Amino acid sequence: MNKYGLHGKLQATAGKGAYLAQILLEASKLVSTAIGCRLYLVSQDSSNPDAVWVTEVWDSKEDHDNSLQVPGVRELISQAMPLLAGRPEKGQELEVLGGTGLEVELAHIS
Amino acid sequence: MNKYGLHGKLQATAGKGAYLAQILLEASKLVSTAIGCRLYLVSQDSSNPDAVWVTEVWDSKEDHDNSLQVPGVRELISQAMPLLAGRPEKGQELEVLGGTGLEVELAHIS
Repeated sequence: MNKYGLHGKLQATAGKGAYLAQILLEASKLVSTAIGCRLYLVSQDSSNPDAVWVTEVWDSKEDHDNSLQVPGVRELISQAMPLLAGRPEKGQELEVLGGTGLEVELAHIS
Repeated sequence: MNKYGLHGKLQATAGKGAYLAQILLEASKLVSTAIGCRLYLVSQDSSNPDAVWVTEVWDSKEDHDNSLQVPGVRELISQAMPLLAGRPEKGQELEVLGGTGLEVELAHIS
């Protein structure tokens, strides 16, 4: 069964990228407790330091959507929103077929 | 110390996406043995089934570049090249700050 992947950018206003990244790193601790969360990475784009990228893998889209219920996540989102330079773009949705490196073993498609 | 992230697309010719994905899943097994390989995920874009996405995290860019020396990797690359619809685009390079889900514990930036 493929997993649900999401790769998206959050553009902070000038000089706020590091602060936004901090908030998202806090969020990664919270969502790590959510059902079906297999990966939540926070990265910066060296060519655009106020852009923060989040790369996620979930057992399902539903699990991802439900993670908003995790206590503390909505508060972090409300902290992050004022730092954004505009509406967050919808991330790239991917079907994760397999690979290596996740804590959970990914069944390769046969 | 941030890790080196790479997220890139390989566009296969019509109908060859699944075959290309298979080769890259094989590659993920090989590179998992390479020094500094922390993540190598193979995904498909549901809106473009002949596009295969590879999402990687390495301890360093150097480790990533050295992975070409892993026995069998060059052979897989030579299998994949004829399936491509053009020169592979350079992937998005990212500085992975931290997060959750990798087998290796990611130190969060303080």
